[in-house]
Amino acid sequence: MIQLREAQQFVINQCPPLGQLALPLQEALDCVIGDSVVATESIPPFTNSAMDGYAVRSADTVGAPVRLAVIGSIMAGQVLNEDLAPGQAARIMTGAPVPGGADAVCMIEETDDHDEGRSVTIRREVRRGEFVRQQGRDVGIGDVVASAGTVLSPAHLGVLANQGVLSVLVHPHPHVGVLSTGDELYTGTGPLPPGKIRDANRHSLLALVRREGWNVTDLGIVGDDDESLRQRLTTAASTCDAIITSGGVSVGDLDLVRVVLDDLSGRTMRWMQVAIRPAKPLAFGLLADSGTPVFGLPGNPVSAMVSFELFARPALRAMGGHRSLHRPVVPAVTDVNLERRRDGKLHLLRARVSLDNRGGWHVETTDGQESHHLQSMSEANALILLPDGSGARAGDLVDVVVLGANDLTRDGAVVTEHDRQMTMS
Amino acid sequence: MIQLREAQQFVINQCPPLGQLALPLQEALDCVIGDSVVATESIPPFTNSAMDGYAVRSADTVGAPVRLAVIGSIMAGQVLNEDLAPGQAARIMTGAPVPGGADAVCMIEETDDHDEGRSVTIRREVRRGEFVRQQGRDVGIGDVVASAGTVLSPAHLGVLANQGVLSVLVHPHPHVGVLSTGDELYTGTGPLPPGKIRDANRHSLLALVRREGWNVTDLGIVGDDDESLRQRLTTAASTCDAIITSGGVSVGDLDLVRVVLDDLSGRTMRWMQVAIRPAKPLAFGLLADSGTPVFGLPGNPVSAMVSFELFARPALRAMGGHRSLHRPVVPAVTDVNLERRRDGKLHLLRARVSLDNRGGWHVETTDGQESHHLQSMSEANALILLPDGSGARAGDLVDVVVLGANDLTRDGAVVTEHDRQMTMS
Repeated sequence: MIQLREAQQFVINQCPPLGQLALPLQEALDCVIGDSVVATESIPPFTNSAMDGYAVRSADTVGAPVRLAVIGSIMAGQVLNEDLAPGQAARIMTGAPVPGGADAVCMIEETDDHDEGRSVTIRREVRRGEFVRQQGRDVGIGDVVASAGTVLSPAHLGVLANQGVLSVLVHPHPHVGVLSTGDELYTGTGPLPPGKIRDANRHSLLALVRREGWNVTDLGIVGDDDESLRQRLTTAASTCDAIITSGGVSVGDLDLVRVVLDDLSGRTMRWMQVAIRPAKPLAFGLLADSGTPVFGLPGNPVSAMVSFELFARPALRAMGGHRSLHRPVVPAVTDVNLERRRDGKLHLLRARVSLDNRGGWHVETTDGQESHHLQSMSEANALILLPDGSGARAGDLVDVVVLGANDLTRDGAVVTEHDRQMTMS
Repeated sequence: MIQLREAQQFVINQCPPLGQLALPLQEALDCVIGDSVVATESIPPFTNSAMDGYAVRSADTVGAPVRLAVIGSIMAGQVLNEDLAPGQAARIMTGAPVPGGADAVCMIEETDDHDEGRSVTIRREVRRGEFVRQQGRDVGIGDVVASAGTVLSPAHLGVLANQGVLSVLVHPHPHVGVLSTGDELYTGTGPLPPGKIRDANRHSLLALVRREGWNVTDLGIVGDDDESLRQRLTTAASTCDAIITSGGVSVGDLDLVRVVLDDLSGRTMRWMQVAIRPAKPLAFGLLADSGTPVFGLPGNPVSAMVSFELFARPALRAMGGHRSLHRPVVPAVTDVNLERRRDGKLHLLRARVSLDNRGGWHVETTDGQESHHLQSMSEANALILLPDGSGARAGDLVDVVVLGANDLTRDGAVVTEHDRQMTMS
């Protein structure tokens, strides 16, 4: 048996980042940029008004109230083609360019217009620069707007669009093929024939891949047939960056998956027994012709999902150029006793993690810790890492891998401190 | 000005769940099921072996070692067409059906085969039921496998596939159109003309929608032209479940967006001033002909994103049938002073939240809290809720809306307690 970390490292080391591609902004969402992007335009691109009001020369407002001649009106998107001379003002809308000569804006609420808008009274003295957003205040030309290694968020796409960058060089999302193997898998839609089971894994694994925003190909099911398996894998390698199979990797399984993968990988496929439970068996290697990584996950539905989380997900993130590969691990108080025996393995218990009113992490197991019990996985949003030994008692701190954070609190409605005090009492 | 909660409730109340549709499993990922799904098949569907070994009658193994006649071999997916008589055993692989007459499995490691597999020595007494997974042990017919209101996770899709359910009745993801408005927005790709700015909002908002897994239509940019705006909105309403616009909702803005939306909504559009900063202006209403909700978000890039988070996202989740509408809010220690003046508004500060080694929440602001500073939003993974008053001091607990949880810890690599002690010392 090899240790979890060693197995993870073995897999990740053989999954270098995919080469960079120029992608349109929306396709680059959640991708990693390999090189920093530097501003070629300043933000704001011109000095503009932060308020609706009047652009003025602040010196003119000394001893306010003062009356100024209004020489024009500037909407957002327009420019005034003359500078303000002393004694002049211009009506200006939020975001419109401050005209030459002006150095401040007086908000509309502190003015009175006269003569059908041809003159205005500024009621109080305006400070130089008031309600004016200077060109380049937020971003100057040459500033790094997104540094190498950044994962492009919706806000980053806005920042790039603001620079006129509508296509960006990124490590693309990996394209992942998902295949199930085994004669026991029933491909029909009618009632199950005797001895057959339905294919849960492909659906779970396709969804896990899609949830990451990656591209996916459903490679279907292949029975225990050498030639079909060989052909399906070879075809998949021509379009996919990586292939995930499930089934056929346990010690006692039919040799078929092993024979084919050993052969296609030029004997580089490694058949591991990882010191964890569930998800002990794991195969990993690169197809010889294409270099395509193949993750051979266990056939057990829960084992397949846990193995995806521990091995395939971080390695595929590495292919996507991510620097942070793993789920967050947090210490949480277990609210239940966690019993186990010493067996040389790290146990991963399906669990629900939640936050108490003070932000403290709590965790409890979901029912059914057998590796084939998919129901408990569907109720889980976390995995408890229970190291080899005699377990933990209720109240102990345990390490928890957080798989999803959407449902950490029962209701995260935006509340003010006032609301909170009322609901907590 | 109206309070945040009231504005949220006003918007959400007008966004009832979309009618249920039968969708293929993969399209139903992260959708909400309206009715519970009940098992029509038991899991496991037949009593099967948990190990590679020999299926036996446990009574035969009393006084082991004993020698038994091997009457066949059962691979996963196969069935043995005869029952075990006393004194008989059958070779069996993991997952294969336990034959009639057998009530236990002896693992292969505790057996010796003879006569080219025609007989086997069982070395130790086997308990009744040992390594046997009983039919229906995990799921019985009639059990609820996914209850009403469940958000379908990858594991749920596996659970449903296991039941032969490949299409499921769900509230579909909303289809959202995103439109930017304003003559100041430059639609070309060359250098910016004077007074024009680039459209960041549409890219950020499209990405925010896509990140939720929802369907999106890019409705582009409409300048300040009554007829174009009217037509674009009407066309969009025929394909979209909801429309998000940005720009044109501030008090001083050109009346155009307001005139058109007021008209198309049959005067039901409500133009709000919400007691928050940023994102004070908000328009919301339903188009009269189609009932399509329209979210009129502010034009400021940061305000648009914050407004999406506070109003559009929870309302669109409500349309998707979600019961939990809001982001989690956690109490976190602020590591910096948070200064503000009393202005009757709840302030939302862009911030980075992180977990310390003990799972405690910490938060600090990202630079630049002006509403047009998109850069600070791109560095943020949280919003601090700073209620009206004089702010907070470093060390105080503040409420924080957690926007993303992927990067809460610097490196969430799966570590054992042993590793942890080494890295923390």
